Amino acid sequence: MTSYNFFCPTRVIFGCGALNRMHEHKLPGKKALLVISNGKSTIVSGSLDRTREQLRLAGCEAVVFNGIGANPLKEMVEDGARAAKSNGCDFVVALGGGSVMDAAKNIAMLATQPSEDLWDYAFGETGKGLPLVNEPLPWVAITTSAGTGSEVDEAGVITKTDTHEKIGVGGYDSMFATLAIVDPELMVTVPPKFTAYQGFDALCHSLEGYISCRHSLMSDMVERSAIEKIGKYLARAVKDGNDIEAREAVAFANTMSGYSMLCVACSSEHSMEHAMSAYHPELPHGAGLIMLSKAYFQFWIDKHVCDERFIDMARFLGMNDADKPQDFITALVKLQEECGVADLKMSDFGIRKEECMTLAKNARATMGVLFAFDPAETTDEEIAGIFEKAYR
Amino acid sequence: MTSYNFFCPTRVIFGCGALNRMHEHKLPGKKALLVISNGKSTIVSGSLDRTREQLRLAGCEAVVFNGIGANPLKEMVEDGARAAKSNGCDFVVALGGGSVMDAAKNIAMLATQPSEDLWDYAFGETGKGLPLVNEPLPWVAITTSAGTGSEVDEAGVITKTDTHEKIGVGGYDSMFATLAIVDPELMVTVPPKFTAYQGFDALCHSLEGYISCRHSLMSDMVERSAIEKIGKYLARAVKDGNDIEAREAVAFANTMSGYSMLCVACSSEHSMEHAMSAYHPELPHGAGLIMLSKAYFQFWIDKHVCDERFIDMARFLGMNDADKPQDFITALVKLQEECGVADLKMSDFGIRKEECMTLAKNARATMGVLFAFDPAETTDEEIAGIFEKAYR
Ligand SMILES: [Zn+2]
Ligand SMILES: [Zn+2]
Repeated sequence: MTSYNFFCPTRVIFGCGALNRMHEHKLPGKKALLVISNGKSTIVSGSLDRTREQLRLAGCEAVVFNGIGANPLKEMVEDGARAAKSNGCDFVVALGGGSVMDAAKNIAMLATQPSEDLWDYAFGETGKGLPLVNEPLPWVAITTSAGTGSEVDEAGVITKTDTHEKIGVGGYDSMFATLAIVDPELMVTVPPKFTAYQGFDALCHSLEGYISCRHSLMSDMVERSAIEKIGKYLARAVKDGNDIEAREAVAFANTMSGYSMLCVACSSEHSMEHAMSAYHPELPHGAGLIMLSKAYFQFWIDKHVCDERFIDMARFLGMNDADKPQDFITALVKLQEECGVADLKMSDFGIRKEECMTLAKNARATMGVLFAFDPAETTDEEIAGIFEKAYR
Repeated sequence: MTSYNFFCPTRVIFGCGALNRMHEHKLPGKKALLVISNGKSTIVSGSLDRTREQLRLAGCEAVVFNGIGANPLKEMVEDGARAAKSNGCDFVVALGGGSVMDAAKNIAMLATQPSEDLWDYAFGETGKGLPLVNEPLPWVAITTSAGTGSEVDEAGVITKTDTHEKIGVGGYDSMFATLAIVDPELMVTVPPKFTAYQGFDALCHSLEGYISCRHSLMSDMVERSAIEKIGKYLARAVKDGNDIEAREAVAFANTMSGYSMLCVACSSEHSMEHAMSAYHPELPHGAGLIMLSKAYFQFWIDKHVCDERFIDMARFLGMNDADKPQDFITALVKLQEECGVADLKMSDFGIRKEECMTLAKNARATMGVLFAFDPAETTDEEIAGIFEKAYR
């Protein structure tokens, strides 16, 4: 397969010090809702003050909205949209990781729609899927982590807790960021554990895309680059957060993994992880993927549906003499060990082995669309079996 | 160097049969000026009728403008802009190679401006460089060749004959194509000689970018991919125009080389070639680059300003055991031989050896900006020396 469609109208400003140059670029409004997490990281690191200063230099006002938690909830987005409306904001700036950016792009969308209920514009199991009535507000991404690729995509992962849905909301061309600031210097304060979780999230976006039945020349290119950079640099970024060369490479890999998802979606591993964290909202997305990944990819290797692609991926991860699909698992586990995340256990996050079939069914019910990107079809029993193999 | 800015709002539809799906995409207007070359190729191949049919299916009218020659002239663009205005066209469709696309994007720009003189909006030596007064018309690219990457950039190379200027005109964000159809099936009728010329143009965009002092993680990625694909597939596409796998790979390489120019410009080799074809308008751009390339890259190898980058490029071209910069020249010449273009002579195109210093000075006067992307500074004498070494 070589065909692809690629569309990403976001202007990416990549590199150390990029945040300092933000005011030199045309910003898409005059009064920003500045969305940050409900934690302290942007305050402590100084990046909040620096962003305010950039907005001031660009002649913009800013209203801070700090209501976003990890695995952002529907209600947080709705609060943010009300804040944007009531303050008369004409654009949104996200300063944070994937959760903040995913929430911010949906805040920007919801702020201009007639309904205040985000699920009126969501798809998935219980969303109404209504068309957008008005153009979303434009938004600017300032990413402080390297994991979700949210700075270059047009959907955000949002959780509706009562129905156990953790799904992508949005997906409209008008929801891409106008400007994405990817400044690796903003990432040096991410703690080792989260550097690893986020790096493996980016890695899985590219690994899943690379084995997808919908792969293309374009997706292959960005994924190879992402897998190579993460294979070479992620453990360094985990071991020394101030290793700026490693931070740059991992930040770049993350943005490329974001592009990958614009050509080809993630595969069912992501549906499976979303099911886990829909039922266990305290589970970090990247940690869920790490715990699934060995059993997940082993499942496809045993099916022999894309042997050559696994050999390629083993080589991309640095095993230059790889010559059989199983080498990929060796390389993957080695990287997990080097990053100190090889021993994560589902039981430590409160997941019980009896949930495996529930999770398998939830994965297909809430994010069934990703299964169409898998190398082959699967049954619920097979997916539950992967959860069981991964369970510790 | 790792920093880069990347912005390409063009939606790329890549793959065999992409033209047949054009009507499924939202087109940016209702009445198109359909720009083609002054030759017969789109009529004979049937692609003109197919494009008209796609426009009809999309509910659009079309007026054909067939006034564009190779190395398009200022006057051709001005004629096209008048045709767009007088016919009330609200968008432009380019069906053709680099010349047609470069002309079409400038027609789209000029059609909405108060002056009918393109050079009022050009920079370079004699352009007035006036700001655009109105938004350009939107345009759609349907590329029938793999060489210039014009489907994904926002400037077009136009020649003003009386002042010997062959320069990029445009460069505004509003001049990117809305939609780019890259359908390798449209390229199977390109004759072997032009397949080679165009392929080497795309190759040089990536080679020049890769040795540029402004290279970045992003430019490195797209250039590696382009150089690898051209190294592996260009000779196949030259030898058998119907080798669709080869056509696909070369078409992809071309679009990636276009992206490369959005991160980092070409280097002075392109200024030098533009000087040659400004004085000798019958010289195909790719042929000019081929005749310069060996001496040009040898010049930089001898300066030892980026030894590792030449070894990389030799490997990308397929010489896996490359371990010294000179290996790059070996690989480059081998590819020229395989494509049947190793024996091109400047004298066959009417170029005289006495012109070398004139060309060197013209290169810097008309497109001096590209010299800033070179690996190091040069003198006019050095540039004239490269022309002399390349002369046969
Ligand atoms: Zn993810
Ligand atoms: Zn060129």
